[in-house]
Amino acid sequence: MQIRLGILGLGTVGSGVLDLLDRHRAFFRDSLGFEFPVTAHCSRSQASLDRFAGQAPFLTRDPLALVSRPDVDVVLELAGGEDAPRAWVEAAFAHGKHVITANKALLAKHGQDLFPLAERTGRFLLFEAAVGGGIPIIRTLQEAFIANDIHGLACIINGTCNYILTEMTQKKLSFQTALKDAQALGYAEADPSFDIEGTDSAHKVALLASLCYGKYVDYGSMSVEGITTLSDVDIAMAEEMGFAIKLLGVVSQDREGRIQANVYPALLEKKHQLATVEGVLNAVFLKTSAVGAILLTGAGAGKLPTASSVVSDLVSLARQLATGNPKVQPMGFFSSRNRADLRPIDELETEFYLRLTAVDKPGVLAKVTAILGEEGISIRALVQKPEHDPERVPVIFLTHSTKNSNVRRALKRIDALDIIQAPTQVLRFYR
Amino acid sequence: MQIRLGILGLGTVGSGVLDLLDRHRAFFRDSLGFEFPVTAHCSRSQASLDRFAGQAPFLTRDPLALVSRPDVDVVLELAGGEDAPRAWVEAAFAHGKHVITANKALLAKHGQDLFPLAERTGRFLLFEAAVGGGIPIIRTLQEAFIANDIHGLACIINGTCNYILTEMTQKKLSFQTALKDAQALGYAEADPSFDIEGTDSAHKVALLASLCYGKYVDYGSMSVEGITTLSDVDIAMAEEMGFAIKLLGVVSQDREGRIQANVYPALLEKKHQLATVEGVLNAVFLKTSAVGAILLTGAGAGKLPTASSVVSDLVSLARQLATGNPKVQPMGFFSSRNRADLRPIDELETEFYLRLTAVDKPGVLAKVTAILGEEGISIRALVQKPEHDPERVPVIFLTHSTKNSNVRRALKRIDALDIIQAPTQVLRFYR
Repeated sequence: MQIRLGILGLGTVGSGVLDLLDRHRAFFRDSLGFEFPVTAHCSRSQASLDRFAGQAPFLTRDPLALVSRPDVDVVLELAGGEDAPRAWVEAAFAHGKHVITANKALLAKHGQDLFPLAERTGRFLLFEAAVGGGIPIIRTLQEAFIANDIHGLACIINGTCNYILTEMTQKKLSFQTALKDAQALGYAEADPSFDIEGTDSAHKVALLASLCYGKYVDYGSMSVEGITTLSDVDIAMAEEMGFAIKLLGVVSQDREGRIQANVYPALLEKKHQLATVEGVLNAVFLKTSAVGAILLTGAGAGKLPTASSVVSDLVSLARQLATGNPKVQPMGFFSSRNRADLRPIDELETEFYLRLTAVDKPGVLAKVTAILGEEGISIRALVQKPEHDPERVPVIFLTHSTKNSNVRRALKRIDALDIIQAPTQVLRFYR
Repeated sequence: MQIRLGILGLGTVGSGVLDLLDRHRAFFRDSLGFEFPVTAHCSRSQASLDRFAGQAPFLTRDPLALVSRPDVDVVLELAGGEDAPRAWVEAAFAHGKHVITANKALLAKHGQDLFPLAERTGRFLLFEAAVGGGIPIIRTLQEAFIANDIHGLACIINGTCNYILTEMTQKKLSFQTALKDAQALGYAEADPSFDIEGTDSAHKVALLASLCYGKYVDYGSMSVEGITTLSDVDIAMAEEMGFAIKLLGVVSQDREGRIQANVYPALLEKKHQLATVEGVLNAVFLKTSAVGAILLTGAGAGKLPTASSVVSDLVSLARQLATGNPKVQPMGFFSSRNRADLRPIDELETEFYLRLTAVDKPGVLAKVTAILGEEGISIRALVQKPEHDPERVPVIFLTHSTKNSNVRRALKRIDALDIIQAPTQVLRFYR
């Protein structure tokens, strides 16, 4: 059986897909009975089109010209972006094409319209590559754990952040130095804010949470914190306590069915399986009703891992198309009509790590502890770090479990004190 | 769409499946459009039949009576055994039923006949539950990593052994005490030999290796070592060196395409991801061409984890049946006509840990080191442990990387010396 491909985007992932299709061509044909000829390429860059010329008969710089071609059965949307690709996917469906995408930003922003549209038009919209690169987390949630309730999820889902945090820990680097190293190695973009502010993680966590609970989770209503304000003091303190700092996506459902989905840097005990996930690796830790706790760890990005997931979606799609009567899996729960009412982070109860930057003079601790007490926050430990600059002494409070709203109120008052020299760094414990 | 089930075996897994079908009935019906009425139960035990009476209209103690019923579409083979269930599965196919099984022993022994039979008769034979309990390793190999070559695999795939090794390490227990604890907790059978001798691991590793390389791997031609001869000295030495001892299934393919598949206790650096897998947990670590290294960890056995995989297979099957033209995935590579020519373990090259039990008198080390040297084995370290019994002193040699055949020949000579009081314990390093 022949399934003709139009490839939209010839960058890292697109070239990886061409590579894997080529390497496994004989296996797909001889063992599975599938051929995947590429009939059309589209790229913004003429240089990319030239580079892969000869591998597809039709070349264009216009995505809409590709998705409307009668000799394309499946569109691989590997170009990136948010709003422009929405129009391409809609046009692809209108022309009867199935779509496989690696684009989490597109799905996080427009999934609530695109998934219902796919269902109405009877077209597949597959996206294993959009979350966790080569880790098969989408099919695990959609298929393997179909007979499980997901009690909670915690994930390390942005390799750039995990690389920076690992470098800060292992080599005792500052955030800025670790970021520069990551940029030099190609692990971080020239403008890294999308990664280090947590936005990319939020896109992926929203998709995962939607799959976990069968309701559309809007990433815009999540609380999202990045790693830009972490200091070497935080890393060193975590080490001393036997903890690691990771940027986590944390999702959970309470007994009333209300969902929390947030992204924040968290302290994890070193013996927790997620704490051992280092460098650019990603990991998803699930707490499920039948299987219990399960962890998937692997390459969360990169040319071939991401391409591997695109091609695995393609083969799954081919197996459906081979039946002659493919059934699109209902994803109506991605519709904004079936929207999750997220519990605000203010209601989250955790233990907190608070690093204040204070002037070194008598009475500081009295003022701060008074405010914490008034806001109902119970202190578990207090550490003052030596610092040569008496104007900026790090003072770390560890709290017992308390509501986020209490901490927010307390810090509003504390950070307004004239003895406090910088916004307080907040970390939450994940247990 | 209605798919009628006949359940063969109402023990732990069977009752777990009934439980999950009940819990998720509304979701399967309303969200996926599937109903799974159970029309027939079969159990050897009248007590089990009585216990679940009322949940199925037809009850029998005769498996062949169940698999031949016209009101059964899919047989869930959850009874265990090796040879008897082969006849049931064959009869099920002959009567046009699809089969889902959790039975690794059956598939390891008879898969080379049953998979081709399934293909010829156009029936599905699904087995996610047979390896790794709730861990979705079968669909990961069959679907997610379809565009990868598998360079190697290492797995902790028997929870009984991993529990015993974890207890020996954490609580400094002897093998016998840890085994008794495992039996008391239901983690080990009254006759535990199937687990602790490595046979159960070998069944699962053979299935995984077959899937990795698209060739039938006969578990009978694997080298299989268990954990029964490990002593507290081995555990303590490993700890001192910063290593953990795990019973591993190890699979690899060399540049000439020849496959190694073996089961043996191995020393793993503590920072290796597999070393942190504790208690009854299972884990599969894969080295792949496109995705790189990936780890899946979770509950490898137990009522609901195993049942979860059975039901996930059922839903996947239902999705295929819903197309009206289901396509059985070709598994011809499980046929013994497409048999992997396993590389014998004698050709494996690793570093070794050898614990000799020697009489404490002068000249012992000279004799042993002479033999090791003559057999071409280079010694990396030597440790003599204090022991109150001078007739049985543990002497540990760590070797540089060397061929298994060299070690086998050397130990044949060493263990024949009158100064050696017990067979030498062999451990291999896994890096």
